[in-house]
Amino acid sequence: MKKYIAGLFILLFYGTILAQQNTGFRQGNITSPQINNDNTVTFRLNAPLAQIVILAGDWEANSGKGEMKKDTAGIWSFTTVVLPSDIYNYKFIVDDVPLLDPCNPFQCRDVGSLFSTFIVSKGRGDYYKVNDVAHGNVIRTWYHSNVFQKDRRLTIYTPPGYEDSKKKYPVLYLLHGSGGDEEAWINSGCLARIMDNLIAEGKANPMVVVMPNGNPSKQAAPGETKDNFDYRPAMSNTFPGYKEGKYEMSFKEIIDFTDSHYNTIPEKSKRAIAGLSMGGFHTMYISANLPETFDYIGLFSPGLNFSGINTSISTYANLDDKLLMFNKLGKKIYWIGVGKEDGLYDAIKNYRSRLDSLKIPYTYLESTRGHIWANWRAYMLDFVPQLF
Amino acid sequence: MKKYIAGLFILLFYGTILAQQNTGFRQGNITSPQINNDNTVTFRLNAPLAQIVILAGDWEANSGKGEMKKDTAGIWSFTTVVLPSDIYNYKFIVDDVPLLDPCNPFQCRDVGSLFSTFIVSKGRGDYYKVNDVAHGNVIRTWYHSNVFQKDRRLTIYTPPGYEDSKKKYPVLYLLHGSGGDEEAWINSGCLARIMDNLIAEGKANPMVVVMPNGNPSKQAAPGETKDNFDYRPAMSNTFPGYKEGKYEMSFKEIIDFTDSHYNTIPEKSKRAIAGLSMGGFHTMYISANLPETFDYIGLFSPGLNFSGINTSISTYANLDDKLLMFNKLGKKIYWIGVGKEDGLYDAIKNYRSRLDSLKIPYTYLESTRGHIWANWRAYMLDFVPQLF
Repeated sequence: MKKYIAGLFILLFYGTILAQQNTGFRQGNITSPQINNDNTVTFRLNAPLAQIVILAGDWEANSGKGEMKKDTAGIWSFTTVVLPSDIYNYKFIVDDVPLLDPCNPFQCRDVGSLFSTFIVSKGRGDYYKVNDVAHGNVIRTWYHSNVFQKDRRLTIYTPPGYEDSKKKYPVLYLLHGSGGDEEAWINSGCLARIMDNLIAEGKANPMVVVMPNGNPSKQAAPGETKDNFDYRPAMSNTFPGYKEGKYEMSFKEIIDFTDSHYNTIPEKSKRAIAGLSMGGFHTMYISANLPETFDYIGLFSPGLNFSGINTSISTYANLDDKLLMFNKLGKKIYWIGVGKEDGLYDAIKNYRSRLDSLKIPYTYLESTRGHIWANWRAYMLDFVPQLF
Repeated sequence: MKKYIAGLFILLFYGTILAQQNTGFRQGNITSPQINNDNTVTFRLNAPLAQIVILAGDWEANSGKGEMKKDTAGIWSFTTVVLPSDIYNYKFIVDDVPLLDPCNPFQCRDVGSLFSTFIVSKGRGDYYKVNDVAHGNVIRTWYHSNVFQKDRRLTIYTPPGYEDSKKKYPVLYLLHGSGGDEEAWINSGCLARIMDNLIAEGKANPMVVVMPNGNPSKQAAPGETKDNFDYRPAMSNTFPGYKEGKYEMSFKEIIDFTDSHYNTIPEKSKRAIAGLSMGGFHTMYISANLPETFDYIGLFSPGLNFSGINTSISTYANLDDKLLMFNKLGKKIYWIGVGKEDGLYDAIKNYRSRLDSLKIPYTYLESTRGHIWANWRAYMLDFVPQLF
């Protein structure tokens, strides 16, 4: 019987992929993941021949780990404890081989890894869902960088009503971390959903959000450049131009492109910039070097340990003076958030002390957990309603 | 040693997903897939405990099947014969469990199934790659349908230079098949790459391409509606409204939205419509019912077996008369393509006979293979250069 099922399975699979390519493929009638009414989640995998199946997710309970148990039909399953409302990533590890859930068509790439994904509702996760509200547009476009002598890709969100209005809008520039790209915030960050939902609730002003690529040697995300699939995702410190200060100084090109191609209010009081990790590092230096440009700054777990920073590069020189000038010219919010377990916690504490000693005020949010998307999405829910 | 490696592996994985979420994850130093210089392709999987590993892809040779062999280190591998230049999908099946290639961060969803993907160059596949040419924009937007009383999602391609020009452009409306949605052509169909590359070579006129959602009961693709991940992809005949004729008659809403929101030439001579499978069925009926609207028609493996069609619905009534009127009002190209092994081959042959008996001329391309994306992409390379 087992052999028969396996043979049938393979036949069905080949039948699917070859004869009629556009037919879906599932593991029989199994449902996985199944979000239960009490916000526990049940995972299932049909793997009769497997010896050990482990569930590895990014929730906090038991470090996201679950040891799956096999029933007599060869279906492995595991049910989590109640999970806080959020969007989550996970994989199965079957006899040491990692795989996405074959029953789940929804996935998310984070740097070089694909994960299956699901949403737990009735809380913060509701902001990461598509709700029955008006939706903004999401645009993939390209600007020309004279500094880098190439076209570079941008992801842009325009709010509901933008297309049918003569209004001009404020702009949030939103930067990714090391290993990320112009797809990171829209995918892992749920940016379009967060904006649609905050705007629909009247908690955020309608705004344009511009998500550039912060890897200066790259034109675009992996798969979106002329290197195609030869460009495998990697952490940004493996790329040329990392922390050489040129990207930060080129940022005006992105602002100019935005203001010349979109209906924006090209004023300091209507511009915000925020970023996570490496993007927080970029945000800090861009805002300090362009002190007349942004009134709203968001540093999300910013990479401010200053390791290997060459202060003879003008971008990175005289930081205290620049911060004082930036502060003197006036700003509305200088927002810093970090998790208690973040490896950058002490570095960010030092940076706050530096601001304190310079008498530069800031807003500070200390969350639980570490250097994770769950925090960065949550920081958006705090930061964005304070803008404009 | 095996246990040690497995333990290290799991440690690294957990280390990755939990402590520093934004770090990539790979299977050690294995490369897979590896496109060799002679256009053979080598696949590798680290699975020391697995008993049988099968490669299942969508190329023609050996029906895309490969029986992988394990080396002493537990790495399974297989090398294909020379593959024709194209973009391909594949999975591994490890002891009956299907999985994406853990070394490959690039995937493609086709209906309900995720596949790993790769490109073989030096031929047709070069049109499916990002090349060093100017790129158009890709926009996800929403139009309001009065017919269906809801907002519905559209994917729109605008050609390079569109944003900086006062020019007006012709429009191709491009429809997906059963199980597809407004993401199908841009992902499996490589639409943006095909257009960028044909335009850059001077083989296609710059044009706007509008890709609607052809499932009338759905607002958008799976994951993009308020049902979020509860809406699992499925074949379109499982959805309400399938072949009820309302979608075809509502199509003018999409044209009106396009002409009012984009720089288009709102004339018959500057409009094309094409679709694959169910989208070919839609294309035939939309063009026949709106005979003054399109000068260019493309039917790619169209679903014209007319099974279960209710000819008492006005959309589907009096087809011969409508086709004669459409022909009389004039058209430039009526293009039909199908593969010799397509299950719809005979139905499409009957439809051609019907056109012959009505003395309606058409262009016909008969390809190899069946009802597959490889054909539909290739049909675009033939069809699009003939437009406008």
